[in-house]
This record gives sequence, C-alpha cells and structure tokens, in this order.
Amino acid sequence: METESRPVPRVVIIGAGFGGLEAAKHLGNKPVFLTVLDRTNHHLFQPLLYQVATAALSPADIAAPVRGILTKYENIEVLLAEVQAVDVEARLVRTTEREMPYDYLIVATGSRHSYFGHPEWEKLAPGLKSLEDAVEIRRRILLAFEFAEKTQDPEARAAAMNFVIIGGGPTGVEMAGAIAEIARKTLAKDFRHIDPSTARVILVEGDKRVLSGFPEDLSVSALEQLQELGVEVITGTHAENLTENGLEVAGKFIPCRVKIWAAGNTASFVGKTLGVPVDKAGRVVVQDDLTIPGHPEVQVIGDLANFTSKDGKPLPGVSPVAIQQGRHAARNILHMVEGAKPQRFYYWDKGSMATIGRNRAVADLNIVHFSGFPAWLAWLFIHVLYLVGFRNRIAVLLQWAWAYVTFNKGARLITRNFQAEQRPVG
Amino acid sequence: METESRPVPRVVIIGAGFGGLEAAKHLGNKPVFLTVLDRTNHHLFQPLLYQVATAALSPADIAAPVRGILTKYENIEVLLAEVQAVDVEARLVRTTEREMPYDYLIVATGSRHSYFGHPEWEKLAPGLKSLEDAVEIRRRILLAFEFAEKTQDPEARAAAMNFVIIGGGPTGVEMAGAIAEIARKTLAKDFRHIDPSTARVILVEGDKRVLSGFPEDLSVSALEQLQELGVEVITGTHAENLTENGLEVAGKFIPCRVKIWAAGNTASFVGKTLGVPVDKAGRVVVQDDLTIPGHPEVQVIGDLANFTSKDGKPLPGVSPVAIQQGRHAARNILHMVEGAKPQRFYYWDKGSMATIGRNRAVADLNIVHFSGFPAWLAWLFIHVLYLVGFRNRIAVLLQWAWAYVTFNKGARLITRNFQAEQRPVG
Repeated sequence: METESRPVPRVVIIGAGFGGLEAAKHLGNKPVFLTVLDRTNHHLFQPLLYQVATAALSPADIAAPVRGILTKYENIEVLLAEVQAVDVEARLVRTTEREMPYDYLIVATGSRHSYFGHPEWEKLAPGLKSLEDAVEIRRRILLAFEFAEKTQDPEARAAAMNFVIIGGGPTGVEMAGAIAEIARKTLAKDFRHIDPSTARVILVEGDKRVLSGFPEDLSVSALEQLQELGVEVITGTHAENLTENGLEVAGKFIPCRVKIWAAGNTASFVGKTLGVPVDKAGRVVVQDDLTIPGHPEVQVIGDLANFTSKDGKPLPGVSPVAIQQGRHAARNILHMVEGAKPQRFYYWDKGSMATIGRNRAVADLNIVHFSGFPAWLAWLFIHVLYLVGFRNRIAVLLQWAWAYVTFNKGARLITRNFQAEQRPVG
Repeated sequence: METESRPVPRVVIIGAGFGGLEAAKHLGNKPVFLTVLDRTNHHLFQPLLYQVATAALSPADIAAPVRGILTKYENIEVLLAEVQAVDVEARLVRTTEREMPYDYLIVATGSRHSYFGHPEWEKLAPGLKSLEDAVEIRRRILLAFEFAEKTQDPEARAAAMNFVIIGGGPTGVEMAGAIAEIARKTLAKDFRHIDPSTARVILVEGDKRVLSGFPEDLSVSALEQLQELGVEVITGTHAENLTENGLEVAGKFIPCRVKIWAAGNTASFVGKTLGVPVDKAGRVVVQDDLTIPGHPEVQVIGDLANFTSKDGKPLPGVSPVAIQQGRHAARNILHMVEGAKPQRFYYWDKGSMATIGRNRAVADLNIVHFSGFPAWLAWLFIHVLYLVGFRNRIAVLLQWAWAYVTFNKGARLITRNFQAEQRPVG
C-alpha cells in the first residue's frame, strides 16, 4: 500500500524483437505505463527466417502479433509506428505521426544489412531480416528453377542453376545447406527439362573459415557437413562486382541469377539520433549498466548496443544477448522507479549453435562441442522450445516432422511481394 | 500393344485451377504429352481464400505447388507462363515467352472481378481471387484497427471501424461473418483505445436477398445468422461513388476505410481470343460437349465457360462444375485420340453450401436444406476432404481446431505485398 500518489512513470520501448519483447514482458503488470512501438505488427522469430526463405515454413509459423503476445498486460499499449528520432534532452520519441514523451526509454531497434559501401547491391542480393525479405528470397529461388525449366538458352539455364550465398556466418551456412537440400531432395523429380540436383550452391566467406564466431573445430566440421551436402565453399575472399548476371569471386566471374546476402550488419539509424558515440557498425556504445552516458533513463539493448564483454570485444548480435539485456533493462527501470541505481549487466553465455541441414549442425556449449546429429537434435529442441506461442510450436513441429519423413516442403509458393513501398494504405 | 507408331498427341491445358488440374490428373500416364500452363506456380483452394483474408489460415495452407501435385505423372510438364492469346487456326498458344503448339487444348483460365465499368474501384475495394488479394485484404483489415487505435481524430477512427463488403454471394457472406468474428472475438482485448467489438460490418447486396443463388429459405436463414453476428445487411441497392473515405449506399454516405469487393465476375480475356461468341460476362459459349463451334480439339471449362444447363441458365461458376467439366474434357480428349467423338457433358448437381461463421452455415443438398450447426459441420467436412494434399489437410484442421477452442487467429500478419508489378525478377 503506497502512501504518496506518485504519477505512474511512462516507459517507451522501441522495437518488439527479442530484446524489446522480453523487456516488455518484465514490465507487464508493474507500476509503470508502457508503450511498445514497432513498425511491424509482429514479433519475428528470426533464427528460423531462413526456413521461410527456403519454403519449409510459412510466415505465420515464425511470427506472432505483438498485440496478441502482450494483450494480457493491462498496463501495456502497442502502437504500430515508424520512429524517426529520439530527442534525449526533451525525453521524446518522434514517430512519423506523433511524439511520445517518456520517463524511461529502451531502444531495441536492431540492425539491417550492411553492403559495405555498395547500397546498389541490395536489390541484386537481398538479405534476410524481415518476413518480406524471406518471401522475396523464396520467390527468387523458386523462380530460378522455373526459369531454368523453360529457357532454351543453355548459358542462362546454367546461371539460373547457380546459387551464391555471400557470407559464411550462421545465416549463410543455414541458407546454403537448405538450398542444397531443396535442390537435391524436394524438387528433384518436379522438372522435366532440368535436373535440380545438379544445381550449384556456392558459399563465399571473406574470413579464412566459415562460422568464424565459433571455435575452430566446429568451423572445420561445418565445412565438412556443407561439402557432404554438395555446397561449394570459398573462403578468404570477398564477392565483387555484383551484377544481375553474376558476381566476381577471387578474380573469377560466376554467372548466377540468385545471390543472397548474409555478410554484414549495420545498426539501425535510431542509435545515431541519441547523440552519444556509436562504433563503426553504428552500434551505440553503452555503459556497463546498458544506459547511455549522461542519460540513465535511456537504455540500449540487443543488436543496436555495443556492450564490451570481459574479453574486450563487443557481445555478438544474437538473441540470447538481446533477451538477457531486455530482462536486465526492465529490472533497471523498476530499480530506478524505486529510486535505486541501474545495475551492472552480466551476460551468461550458454553457447551457440548453427544448423546446416537435415541431421546436420554444430553446437558450442562452451565445455563441449557437438556436431552432426546430436547437435541437430539440440538445435531442434531449443528452437521449438523458444518459439513464441503454443500454436506456432505445434504447427512448426508438425511441418518439420512431415518434411523430415517426406523431404517435402509445403510452402513452395511464388507470390508477388515488393519491398519498394512501405506506406500503409490510405 | 500398338502396331502403328502414331506420334504422341500434344495436349495443352491453360490454367491449373479446379478444372484444369482435374483434367490434368485424368490425362496423367495416358498416351498423350501434356503441358500445363499457369501464371502462378500454385493451385489455389479458392473456397478457403476468405480465411487467409481474415487471418485464420496462411497462404501455404490453401495452396499447393502445381509441379508437386503432378510430379508423379511423367507425361506431364508444368510451365510457369503468362498466356497472351490462342490461335485456334494455327493451333498455337502464345505466351509472353514462346508459342506452344497443340493437338488438343483445354482452356480453363477462370474469371476476375468485374467492377461494372468502374475499373478505378479496384484499388479502393480489392476483390478476393488470388493469394495476393487475400494478403492485401488481411493487411487492410488489420491496419484499419491499428489506425483506429492510434488516431486522435474521432471521425477517422469511426471510419476505420466500418467495414463494407460489396456483394452478398457466398464470398461476401463469408467475409462479412469472418470480419465480424475477428472484431468481436479475436481482437476484442488487444487494444487500449478502441473496442474492436464496436466495429460495424456492413454487407451490401444489389439483389433483394443475400445468397440469391440459393433457395429462398436459406437466404432468410443466412440473413438471420449474419444478423446474430452483428452484421448489418442492406439489400436491393447498389454501392455507388466509392472513394478512399467511403461510399454511397441508397443515397446515404457511409464513411469507411476498408471496402471489399465481392460483387461480380468477368471471364478471363483468353476466352475472347478464341474467335467464337462470348456472353456479356465474357464467358465462352460452349457446345454441349464442352468444345467450341468448328474446333472439336478446343474445349473450354470452368468459370470461363458458359454451358447452358437444363433450365436454360448457364451453370454457376463453382468448383464442382469446373471439376466435373475438367474430368469430362480429359475423357473427351482420350476419346478423340482413339478416333471417337467428344461426348455430351451432364452436370451432376450435388448442392451447394456457404459458411457464415463459427457454427453457422447454410447447405442446399437439393432434397434437404440445412442451416446453422449441421450445415456448418457438413461444410467443414467437405472442405477438409477436398483440400489438396495431405499436409494441408492436417495443418488446416489443426489450426481450425485451435481457433475453435481459443477464438485465436494465428495468421494476423501485416506484410507489405503489392500487386502493382507482375514481372518476375530479371
């Protein structure tokens, strides 16, 4: 029972990704009034986005409406809004439609692809961040086979059957493995004039090894597992001179129709409007309690934050970091509301994993390293466990079980979906 | 065992809807070489399209790749192609990319919406024929609630909460019922500044009664069931003067943001290129064996055909007609290949049904009329039974079961999806 009647503090969270959503849940039914802003209406389970891009799952299987997830917390409102800037002095978030005042702010707007000074490559080699990206990549992959089936030009046919993935991190490795499986298994008997199993899948990585964020033995294992699937892996060199007809790798031109970008990230522009230092990837350099210098009421989390870990390097842009930071940021706010100081954040690194295909994966659990089938099982278990919403978990499990038994992928739809426009109707 | 070696006849089917696909299956592993042309890569289970438009199902739940369905027939090839015209004299189908010669042709390109001389209304009030249409309508419905939640203009808010469906046939009735259910149940607790259950759903029908193709007692029942769901039904008048802000009905302006067109069809343009008479809806007037005058090698089926039934009226544009005609057309071709004549087509009318919502439907089985729960159960049974592909049936059943128990609709995604462009990626 409180004796004074303080005004209820207004909290704003920008972004309903892993970090923002976790923070929101921890502020649910607490003595604050919370507004969650996002420019889409859904939370996206990004680790499975490559499965939408490769026709194994539907968009709705890995996305849940933010409103639905937070509906039970009466102190939370959700607004579909495009944020333009944060005015930290005036304590205002500016959106395209109105200004939202706040007492406490969590910025969790994540990152987009970085094309290393070649923004014109984005159309040629789309990346994989949103549902729209995934549907567009799925469309390009399926259309390439359709084109190869009907063209009478052998060179154009060969180019349509080459798939190049640029970037050998977890997303690139997953995409390469999944495209190889579609070509060799799912589509194997669907065509009359081409043999999809002769498709070339080429993974290009600038570093000396794929999965360079993982321990070296797992990189070696991932390389072997990719090669078993027939993926050609080229390391230690960068893709250059991208055109509609192909790209150059190590001085050699590879004709190819479908190019997929998985090479680099750049932080959301919202970080730069905070008026504090950002690193060269555009991430906001946060203090050890996740706040920004001079503004304890503003915290930055997830892919947008550069948080220096024990070894002096920034924490990686993965969902466990975002989730733990989201929870911590929410607790910091509750502390501050009570008049206490924000606390130091510690990351508990439980390890990381990447899947390569059916029965194939690598898992780094710090003490032990797995690869192959046990790693794949662990990956499966964790991902189903963390999928938001009971319905999605069941639907995804069923579709995976079905695909596992039959090699069939159910979501092989080519639909028109364009990213050019972003304005809502009306 | 054949003694002469006749060349294998080339058959072309244009369109992989219910009619075209049924014909293709009946020509599978028969002594013909068959090419199926379609401009999309998937067969669409159109009777459930309104469920995608109202967020109950995902696109992949009601669509299956044509290639996958026909993969087991080695004499069938599938081509993704846009047909421009048929040259019946030269026996050629012209597509945007090449010409396909044929010995026998089945034209099954269906229909699009008709805006009765107002093509500019299409953008304001989209119809429901393709997956793209459904995703666009879903987006508009969900965005209207999002807009109402955040606007501070009471008039704009009221307009966003009005949903007008133009046309009271089965699609219009299904859409009206489904939108009413979303507003009253699914979204009821998701917003803070609006009460979705106060949304007005208005169904406008030019005829004197809804479901005018059904017996009169079922129209009465459908009207009652719609009213129980809170749908306002206006009959005997046409929608006029559509603008972004609303439309006029019976001289009164109804402000509304979301308008959905379910009022009329016009046959595909391909029929007009055959050089034989078409009716005023653009349908090809076929002979009693489904062939066109002077060209027994060309048959027209489904929504594109005007086939005069016993009572002197054309058969309705529903899937049972298309399926029976597809089967018949395939048999006619096999007859003709053997030197026999095409046979007369008889339609076996098993009845028709329309669903209105949870536990609500009407069914006309000729001898008996059902409405309410028994009709709804019958509808459910038939639709799951006919859904193409085992995986889809299971997935749809599970999602329905889940939605039935929880009133939750899983596919509430707003994704950007634009119909402006149709060209595949270069």
